[in-house]
Amino acid sequence: MEKFQIRTDLALEAQERFREDHVEIPGVKIDEEYRKDTDIRITRVIIETENGSRVMQKPRGMYLTLEAPNMSVPDEAYHREISRELALKLKELLGGDEEKSVLVVGLGNWEVTPDALGPDVVGNLLITRHIVNEYGMAAFEQERVNRISAIVPGVMAQTGMETLEILQGVVDRTRPDVMIAVDALAARSTRRLNRTIQISDAGIFPGSGVGNHRQALTRETLGIPVIAIGVPTVVDAATIVNDTMENLVEAMSQAESLKDLGYTLSQLDASEKYQLIRELISPQLNGMFVTPKDIDETVKRIGFTISEGINMALQIG
Amino acid sequence: MEKFQIRTDLALEAQERFREDHVEIPGVKIDEEYRKDTDIRITRVIIETENGSRVMQKPRGMYLTLEAPNMSVPDEAYHREISRELALKLKELLGGDEEKSVLVVGLGNWEVTPDALGPDVVGNLLITRHIVNEYGMAAFEQERVNRISAIVPGVMAQTGMETLEILQGVVDRTRPDVMIAVDALAARSTRRLNRTIQISDAGIFPGSGVGNHRQALTRETLGIPVIAIGVPTVVDAATIVNDTMENLVEAMSQAESLKDLGYTLSQLDASEKYQLIRELISPQLNGMFVTPKDIDETVKRIGFTISEGINMALQIG
Amino acid sequence: MEKFQIRTDLALEAQERFREDHVEIPGVKIDEEYRKDTDIRITRVIIETENGSRVMQKPRGMYLTLEAPNMSVPDEAYHREISRELALKLKELLGGDEEKSVLVVGLGNWEVTPDALGPDVVGNLLITRHIVNEYGMAAFEQERVNRISAIVPGVMAQTGMETLEILQGVVDRTRPDVMIAVDALAARSTRRLNRTIQISDAGIFPGSGVGNHRQALTRETLGIPVIAIGVPTVVDAATIVNDTMENLVEAMSQAESLKDLGYTLSQLDASEKYQLIRELISPQLNGMFVTPKDIDETVKRIGFTISEGINMALQIG
Amino acid sequence: MEKFQIRTDLALEAQERFREDHVEIPGVKIDEEYRKDTDIRITRVIIETENGSRVMQKPRGMYLTLEAPNMSVPDEAYHREISRELALKLKELLGGDEEKSVLVVGLGNWEVTPDALGPDVVGNLLITRHIVNEYGMAAFEQERVNRISAIVPGVMAQTGMETLEILQGVVDRTRPDVMIAVDALAARSTRRLNRTIQISDAGIFPGSGVGNHRQALTRETLGIPVIAIGVPTVVDAATIVNDTMENLVEAMSQAESLKDLGYTLSQLDASEKYQLIRELISPQLNGMFVTPKDIDETVKRIGFTISEGINMALQIG
Repeated sequence: MEKFQIRTDLALEAQERFREDHVEIPGVKIDEEYRKDTDIRITRVIIETENGSRVMQKPRGMYLTLEAPNMSVPDEAYHREISRELALKLKELLGGDEEKSVLVVGLGNWEVTPDALGPDVVGNLLITRHIVNEYGMAAFEQERVNRISAIVPGVMAQTGMETLEILQGVVDRTRPDVMIAVDALAARSTRRLNRTIQISDAGIFPGSGVGNHRQALTRETLGIPVIAIGVPTVVDAATIVNDTMENLVEAMSQAESLKDLGYTLSQLDASEKYQLIRELISPQLNGMFVTPKDIDETVKRIGFTISEGINMALQIG
Repeated sequence: MEKFQIRTDLALEAQERFREDHVEIPGVKIDEEYRKDTDIRITRVIIETENGSRVMQKPRGMYLTLEAPNMSVPDEAYHREISRELALKLKELLGGDEEKSVLVVGLGNWEVTPDALGPDVVGNLLITRHIVNEYGMAAFEQERVNRISAIVPGVMAQTGMETLEILQGVVDRTRPDVMIAVDALAARSTRRLNRTIQISDAGIFPGSGVGNHRQALTRETLGIPVIAIGVPTVVDAATIVNDTMENLVEAMSQAESLKDLGYTLSQLDASEKYQLIRELISPQLNGMFVTPKDIDETVKRIGFTISEGINMALQIG
Repeated sequence: MEKFQIRTDLALEAQERFREDHVEIPGVKIDEEYRKDTDIRITRVIIETENGSRVMQKPRGMYLTLEAPNMSVPDEAYHREISRELALKLKELLGGDEEKSVLVVGLGNWEVTPDALGPDVVGNLLITRHIVNEYGMAAFEQERVNRISAIVPGVMAQTGMETLEILQGVVDRTRPDVMIAVDALAARSTRRLNRTIQISDAGIFPGSGVGNHRQALTRETLGIPVIAIGVPTVVDAATIVNDTMENLVEAMSQAESLKDLGYTLSQLDASEKYQLIRELISPQLNGMFVTPKDIDETVKRIGFTISEGINMALQIG
Repeated sequence: MEKFQIRTDLALEAQERFREDHVEIPGVKIDEEYRKDTDIRITRVIIETENGSRVMQKPRGMYLTLEAPNMSVPDEAYHREISRELALKLKELLGGDEEKSVLVVGLGNWEVTPDALGPDVVGNLLITRHIVNEYGMAAFEQERVNRISAIVPGVMAQTGMETLEILQGVVDRTRPDVMIAVDALAARSTRRLNRTIQISDAGIFPGSGVGNHRQALTRETLGIPVIAIGVPTVVDAATIVNDTMENLVEAMSQAESLKDLGYTLSQLDASEKYQLIRELISPQLNGMFVTPKDIDETVKRIGFTISEGINMALQIG
């Protein structure tokens, strides 16, 4: 049965649709842990097969989600917890403890507040590659140092270039061992905005993020592993309409006077429903997003938390 | 009959609701002119009576609206036209040609892209007050010079103060003859985003703008005339839901298979409808706004156009 | 004997000129403490009399200086130490432990990197006044909460207004108990750049800072105590010339072949010397400043350290 | 005879040193034109031979300098003149009128005001490459359209990478026909700050600009012609010291009482002089620059003027 496609960058949300329907997805493994002391919930979604990938509409790989309900609240100690948890998970995905050359990419448009997360993160990183290249490890009084470089490639409207083109070129020339790409995501539901961090080894794929990448940033296209870190900071405006529709059916089937209506609506078959929703979505909503009014403080805070997590994960020796 | 209250800062939109219903509003005068060469439409709404004010939910005063469909397009010559038109209207509201001391206020939060319009405008103004105060008119090689000062007061989350408190203090101390307050507005419809400039002598009133001023900035509260210049850069997220609802009724009464449904919905009485919509609006949508993805370029461009308009209007001698 | 006037905002530097000459200044008390563990040196200069004030060219009051040689280095733990030390000293100057309403002012021009310190500090503060005013203490789950407000007034070229005018107005209307004004300072010597924090209860006085305030921000002009926090981020370009001159005399009296020259120069009387230096200073140097190339990172880091110090000092209950 | 090496990025200043000494430089051609109506002076320095290159300490190539004394003044019409003049010269260096793919590079650090010129210019460009690639020329309703792309690569402290590495990669992947690199320069003299634009086909070479590129951006390193556009926005702090020294000798040989001294100083041989100046330069001055206080407005204004010039030059069809 075809469902109306609602865009989400979160694997967590992709699988929730099925959970609601009590459907198990072959080729997709899910497990959850909950940290009572910090109120952080970690969900691990592993898409193992092509079939799983097709159903979830996400590439194969591991998707870790940290849900921290108070992530947009200014509580320094709590944010340090999140950074630490993020660092642990990042280390897991980075694998081995040998020295690495890591290129961190701050995706998104720094001039649009909810899309400035990636650039913000890069602005707080400890950059070491040029120092190691020039002075060697000695400069750090440590035996082992990761060589960390970073770039903020901008978005296509600013550069006229695909992000992939720029990054392929930079990877060719500077030969990092791994890329960490940080991006602002689009969530399916406003409830998840600014309280979830997704970490994945599957890279960044077309149509994701606020800035709508058109070409995938993955091991296939870049030749090195790509770890993606994302936080949903916007919801597609069209999504809101779908929510309304669902709320409407729900409301109708409860209110006595509307029961018939609710019944009729829920009786529509999939293609009728799809047709209906397409008509409801005003064409002006294309290219529009929904975001909270205090998004400036939130993005600044979460950006700092993520950069601290990356700094911790990359500190070795 | 009670209508579901949709928030709009545009008098033009407020009156449209009535026009749709073919209702004339006593105490409200409306006239329109259309510039064929520039495709700019100017609507003048004058709210003359308390009754008109109550119906329109806007204070008494004159509301001029410039609609320029291509305002967000990068066409320099066209923007110069808009600046010129804006300057003319501003001069009309400023009255007389004698020298004035003018305080321009850039309302809004410069860290949230669609709310940065006011601060952007102030950043491009020719500021003269301190030069006139120190060196006299001579510095400008003109006989008459307006003394122009400007401030970006920030929003309450940044300052802990009401914008009104700050501006009252500044007006007390620097005694301008008139205030021009520039603000990003919330429109009723996405169709109007970034293509409309509203100029009004009624000031800025509670609940308007992206930043939700809580206290009015008017001649009553500040002791000097307050000319407001606003451009809708966002739509309240809740508004989108209402649009959907209306589209739904519309769609249902057209599609054959849904006709009954549309009929039933449009049969609901006002309070039922109101109740239904309230239930449809997710509480998470409060404090959320909808804005286009390319809002950064648009705000920069329109901000420049408005500052040029103000610069022209204030240049005398 | 008249000395060539070199501008410095640091009381510490003002008294050093005399120390070099082994002159004690009547009406000025100085004591020093040194924290071996943190390598922070704290100097307390108290200007007690009008005579002391005249000699030091600084208003009467207490001037505390924290010198932390590594303040521009990215070492989080070390910066936390500095914040803590700053908080202690601030509390001392703020006096009593009763609830207060505090207005923090971020002086300077946010568009000129070394002058953006004040605005940067304000951007990281916990603002509480509007929340206490609206919801009471309850919102903070504490018995006592300081009401903290903040403003970034801009500089005269941006506003056309004296900073004093703006702040007098804001103080009149919002009635804080005390003002904390943060500003980027001009140091006498490049050695002191970005490694010194001066805290004073004497306020901010004309000609200080990068932005050249022309009117004093003091208890006299504002009606409330004004605590100034400053960090030297620039050196006046003209100062460099004077340094050169002094280095020249020094060098000449040491190099054998130049001894006569050094002798002749040091023989010049004060007015001749003054005349000579005036001729050496290129008029283009007026309004120019000297600052390090990595000033962006330094200002960001120190700004954060100071805002943390203020946050700690103002947290009570 | 060895001269104390003063750093300048301007070929105009490099040749002035020789002009003062009435020395003609073999292999270097210079001619000047002066536009009386606009008060713009254009100097063309062509370094034709290796010898000329060695003497001038600049690579072979053409260096065009536009001197416009009022370039930092806010006069829109005048700036339009400069943009037009710049566009003409750019077209000359770009050669032929056939369609091109042009990559514009905004060098420098956008977080340090005088170094933000390059990034500012890129922010105002009309970017077309992605539109042509996706929709073809048709999108522009023109027969011929240049494909314009742009990047702001950041500085090494931000990226850990050489600018050259990043740009080589981007050029490899996107294959532009020509690069235009915009950079803030260091001038020899404060008199030239913010009133001179240098355009050259010799590229950008090590040690130039505020950000100190270490590797050349030239046709040799990038494989495509590199046109450099630069404006001096800073003077090296060490330069100021040398100026003082020269002013000192000058002053001394004029003031009666100091005549002997001036004489003695000018009698020093080159190595003595060099030694003396080295001693005078405080080591703290390394990595410091001198810039005017109003550099924010100036950089914004000149950046806009240059981006307009580039936009005009690249508009064809």
